[in-house]
Amino acid sequence: MTANLLADLPDASAGEVFTALLSRPGVRVERIVSQGQTTPKGEPMVQGWDEWVLLLEGGARLRIEDADEVALRPGDHLLIGAGQRHWVTWTAKDRATVWLAVHFD
Amino acid sequence: MTANLLADLPDASAGEVFTALLSRPGVRVERIVSQGQTTPKGEPMVQGWDEWVLLLEGGARLRIEDADEVALRPGDHLLIGAGQRHWVTWTAKDRATVWLAVHFD
Repeated sequence: MTANLLADLPDASAGEVFTALLSRPGVRVERIVSQGQTTPKGEPMVQGWDEWVLLLEGGARLRIEDADEVALRPGDHLLIGAGQRHWVTWTAKDRATVWLAVHFD
Repeated sequence: MTANLLADLPDASAGEVFTALLSRPGVRVERIVSQGQTTPKGEPMVQGWDEWVLLLEGGARLRIEDADEVALRPGDHLLIGAGQRHWVTWTAKDRATVWLAVHFD
């Protein structure tokens, strides 16, 4: 059975939409749809496990502590290490931004 | 550090190109670039673990035993169960087809 991660996207303009795709012991795969959301400067995201993210569609900017902010375009991927504080500093407001996230928890 | 899965693609016209992206206990993430390859009818692919695939770019057709052949376009994803015989029955010859594969091994 086939499903599509980019078709019939949910409206994320009022809040990011998280969709669990599959999970196995030690790993979870999810889709995140953003539209204009950013992480408040004083409230970084941080989690106790490694997270690999791949931008599938749209555009975003991300900053990980002790590193330069990076602009992300479709196909860009990076690993956010366990314990690393990070901020989404920009996501496109005029269209959906779709992320694939693999959580190694 | 950011890398891009869709930029500077290797030439896969002479053979599929497999690139390991990361691995953790029980899970491996890889990119596969195809260009025109198919699976011989009498030599199905089969592996002893679940594999989740997501088509990122290009086009392909896939058949899993006991199911109809499906056409895949970017964003399409599906789970190939451990032990399921499957065949890539078509990949575009005129451009690269890029897959993300997550192996739960």
